[in-house]
Amino acid sequence: MRLRHKPWAKEKIENYPQYVIPNPEQYRGNWNALFGNNQPVHVEVGTGKGRFVTGMAKANPGINYIGIELQESVIVAALDRLIDAELPNVKLLNTNGEDLQKFFAKGDVGRIYLNFSDPWPKNRHEKRRLTHESFLRIYEDILIDQGEIHFKTDNRGLFEYSLVSFTQYDLALKYISLDLHNSDFEGNIMTEYEEKFSSKGHPIYRCEVKYE
Amino acid sequence: MRLRHKPWAKEKIENYPQYVIPNPEQYRGNWNALFGNNQPVHVEVGTGKGRFVTGMAKANPGINYIGIELQESVIVAALDRLIDAELPNVKLLNTNGEDLQKFFAKGDVGRIYLNFSDPWPKNRHEKRRLTHESFLRIYEDILIDQGEIHFKTDNRGLFEYSLVSFTQYDLALKYISLDLHNSDFEGNIMTEYEEKFSSKGHPIYRCEVKYE
Ligand SMILES: C[S@@+](CC[C@H](N)C(=O)[O-])C[C@H]1O[C@@H](n2cnc3c(N)ncnc32)[C@H](O)[C@@H]1O
Ligand SMILES: C[S@@+](CC[C@H](N)C(=O)[O-])C[C@H]1O[C@@H](n2cnc3c(N)ncnc32)[C@H](O)[C@@H]1O
Repeated sequence: MRLRHKPWAKEKIENYPQYVIPNPEQYRGNWNALFGNNQPVHVEVGTGKGRFVTGMAKANPGINYIGIELQESVIVAALDRLIDAELPNVKLLNTNGEDLQKFFAKGDVGRIYLNFSDPWPKNRHEKRRLTHESFLRIYEDILIDQGEIHFKTDNRGLFEYSLVSFTQYDLALKYISLDLHNSDFEGNIMTEYEEKFSSKGHPIYRCEVKYE
Repeated sequence: MRLRHKPWAKEKIENYPQYVIPNPEQYRGNWNALFGNNQPVHVEVGTGKGRFVTGMAKANPGINYIGIELQESVIVAALDRLIDAELPNVKLLNTNGEDLQKFFAKGDVGRIYLNFSDPWPKNRHEKRRLTHESFLRIYEDILIDQGEIHFKTDNRGLFEYSLVSFTQYDLALKYISLDLHNSDFEGNIMTEYEEKFSSKGHPIYRCEVKYE
């Protein structure tokens, strides 16, 4: 994600506490209180500009979505979408995926989405990949039993790495496509990166894995 | 594999019992007796015309290779290679992979290779795929502990199916490449099908999985 310096971003985020939740630790174990219902909560880590999470929220009103995005200058674009869309079932957290356990108790989250996560191709950056073992442990700590991770990317190296990482962690592969846009998968919601890379002809890889 | 009727194939096979082993059940639990050494035995199921198994035998004189091929009319081409190559460490069996347990006892086999296995794309033929659960059970029954399957194919559907099948069977993924010929994998020995399909620009998928 290209970073432009946006000094106004922080202020804008603070002006919309109904969309970008300011103190998420207060909802730990109790996200129903925020959403006002008992629907499952699905979390996307690395939401970017929010196209996926808002598209999913529109398509699935019976699910609550939370998009986690580290960069203020990026999450404001997702915020703009939310302001336009006025969806009751999607919120944003401007935070790091490393800190998920602070905001979610075991069982708070029904599913994790990872879309076009930063590949961190260098070996010495392996621990930053959102599918590194240390992240799989964090997700396990907040997911329901038999919770799932749904992951897509155009990055071959990251996908290969992630498949090995998932299976070494004993996650079961439920579904895999090595060319999503030429598969019979239905109801795909494109992300910004997906639009960009699939239009260049890159195959999109996708898988669903499950904790047992 | 296109089948031409080759009535002479059966006779030719019978004329070379030193290469195409006529009564393999006699070596069950005792393949060392045939090879005259204690080297590990690696088995390729669906050897086709034998390019892979002879290439591997040349490159790895410390391993014994056995190529399993169902079709007489195909295995004769592999036999021709063996007659030319005069390698002490490769043999052929003209039999069905379903019957492996008749010829190999638990621990006889150090590794299974599956290369460009018939994809059997129709759901009702799923059981014929060499990576179906029933085959994974057969391989487990003849492999050493922590034995491995090394699998490559250009067939996306078969590869996707196989990854799910492997991980549902609790095999751990050790290695995966989604574009073998543009990866840093070294020492690849091409099969006939691999040559054909990679020259058409198909990506070659490859993985290594391990019984635990
Ligand atoms: C390559 S972009 C993909 C954005 C979006 N998912 C898409 O597919 O278009 C990855 C995003 O993940 C965010 N990100 C990376 N690591 C993160 C972390 N540890 N916690 C939260 N967000 C993170 C980055 O700031 C960036 O916006
Ligand atoms: C598509 S060809 C691939 C040949 C070779 N491995 C290659 O990559 O060039 C598959 C081969 O597997 C053989 N085969 C299929 N099912 C088999 C089985 N159950 N047991 C033994 N051989 C089998 C077929 O006869 C055919 O020769």
